[in-house]
Amino acid sequence: MENNAIKIDNESSPSSSLLLTPQNVDSLFNSVEAFLFDCDGVIWKGDKLIEGVPETLEMLRSKGKKLVFVTNNSTKSRKQYAKKFCSLGISVTEEEIFSSSFAAAMYLKVNDFPREKKVYVIGEEGILEELELAGFTGLGGPEDGKKKVELKPNCLFEHDKSVGAVVVGLDQYINYYKLQYGTLCIRENPGCLFIATNRDAVGHMSDLQEWPGAGCMVAAVCGSTQKEPIVVGKPSTFMMDFLLQKFQISTSKMCMVGDRLDTDILFGQNAGCKTLLVLSGVTTLSALQDPSNIIQPDYYVNKVSDILKFLG
Amino acid sequence: MENNAIKIDNESSPSSSLLLTPQNVDSLFNSVEAFLFDCDGVIWKGDKLIEGVPETLEMLRSKGKKLVFVTNNSTKSRKQYAKKFCSLGISVTEEEIFSSSFAAAMYLKVNDFPREKKVYVIGEEGILEELELAGFTGLGGPEDGKKKVELKPNCLFEHDKSVGAVVVGLDQYINYYKLQYGTLCIRENPGCLFIATNRDAVGHMSDLQEWPGAGCMVAAVCGSTQKEPIVVGKPSTFMMDFLLQKFQISTSKMCMVGDRLDTDILFGQNAGCKTLLVLSGVTTLSALQDPSNIIQPDYYVNKVSDILKFLG
Repeated sequence: MENNAIKIDNESSPSSSLLLTPQNVDSLFNSVEAFLFDCDGVIWKGDKLIEGVPETLEMLRSKGKKLVFVTNNSTKSRKQYAKKFCSLGISVTEEEIFSSSFAAAMYLKVNDFPREKKVYVIGEEGILEELELAGFTGLGGPEDGKKKVELKPNCLFEHDKSVGAVVVGLDQYINYYKLQYGTLCIRENPGCLFIATNRDAVGHMSDLQEWPGAGCMVAAVCGSTQKEPIVVGKPSTFMMDFLLQKFQISTSKMCMVGDRLDTDILFGQNAGCKTLLVLSGVTTLSALQDPSNIIQPDYYVNKVSDILKFLG
Repeated sequence: MENNAIKIDNESSPSSSLLLTPQNVDSLFNSVEAFLFDCDGVIWKGDKLIEGVPETLEMLRSKGKKLVFVTNNSTKSRKQYAKKFCSLGISVTEEEIFSSSFAAAMYLKVNDFPREKKVYVIGEEGILEELELAGFTGLGGPEDGKKKVELKPNCLFEHDKSVGAVVVGLDQYINYYKLQYGTLCIRENPGCLFIATNRDAVGHMSDLQEWPGAGCMVAAVCGSTQKEPIVVGKPSTFMMDFLLQKFQISTSKMCMVGDRLDTDILFGQNAGCKTLLVLSGVTTLSALQDPSNIIQPDYYVNKVSDILKFLG
């Protein structure tokens, strides 16, 4: 379990990551034009805002910094995320949000996925909504969450032969029906793509604890198909082209702020951004400083609002 | 999809596996005292017997050969398997059956798993039944198949802190509740074991097609826990000690008959047995002969009843 109020011991800070302090915050702040934020564990946990976030974002905007939200959580669409931000008292536009649900739809779009083909979804509403907005026909998702499998002699589980891609994301309604459907499409439909929104092991689906993430469902489909997916969310930099197109800022002037080493920080590093790890989510200080950890952010800090505190 | 009536072309047989023929069947038959059979894809597909099996088993028994059934399918207990054999007109005793459900219970037994600790099961009735027979307390399984997760603020998903092992096998009632329960036990209960009955990608849950196997559920738990399991079913040779104890036959005088290269044949080879691949299950002739395949059985044949035909 993670601790919300971790005491940071300056003396044990790792050699290659710097603890963000009132002394060095200016050098990060002045060199960055856009802050890229992960959401779960950075902005909120489940439906609960992390302390001091709205004021910090407001301050950043007032100082002319661009804000972008890059989330691996595929359960919502960009529109649904904008609503969530709004309900938590933070004003964010759809265009500032880059979710892995959007990434999945964009992957199909830039790869000229044929409009007449269908997309089977092991995941939630967000993926289906983004597919529809991009002009694709989605199948499965929440609707198949109630379907049951009947294993009877001579019965054949039928699947749609026109499915040309299976998108797998976090799915709290995962069941054997969906696993069989997705597996059959990938194994039997010639050329069928296997796309993973992301491979996060766990996430803060509720504020008090972690739950199995998309990495769980994706691994299940890897297990039954013995194939590896195309990953469109972090740490893949697939979304970076869209970000660059929209914001026209060099990645060296961007700072990725996240709570996960293997997705957020790796994504930032892969894209050539500065990186700031916050300890308000899944990564503990001891995990960061563990000798087995090879991913070191440029800076780390307890939580996002420390930026405001240090600059104030 | 596999083909029940594969035409075998003698000329394209792989260099290291021999096609079983009327000419070489005697040399295999005479050197073997016990035949170890896999079940799914060898004896039956789903609930449908494969042609000619009862007569072949009867002939082998009449010639003094020991018969053993080693199955990775954990959905049934040994008792339930004996009933299934009986319902298909084949007389087999419980003691001749080594299922991965039994293997999971035996693993805990030989490793002195404390009786006061509990075992959480992502799997079906067979595992719970074997655990109970071995004197252990099982939780989860089919009962948790109907449970739903509620992701509400401030709600905490509670798990039993006395769970000391999670056993994962094939589970057609897999859901997010079980995945979270098993994940929490493995991540949070100190020293909690993660045991996989097996890692088969797919299996013939019905006669007409393949379905996601235990490898799907096991991979899901690997994905959320980022841990690797102890595997007790094939190709692990954990069961071999029990077999040897019961039958007192050297493994060099055993022949493992199965339809899977990566479980059955590898298990036989790991244990020092002779190996016979049947093409009546998941492995096609082209998969056997594919240059990427490194697992070569001693012999291969269309189906079990060819042994009877060739000897007859």
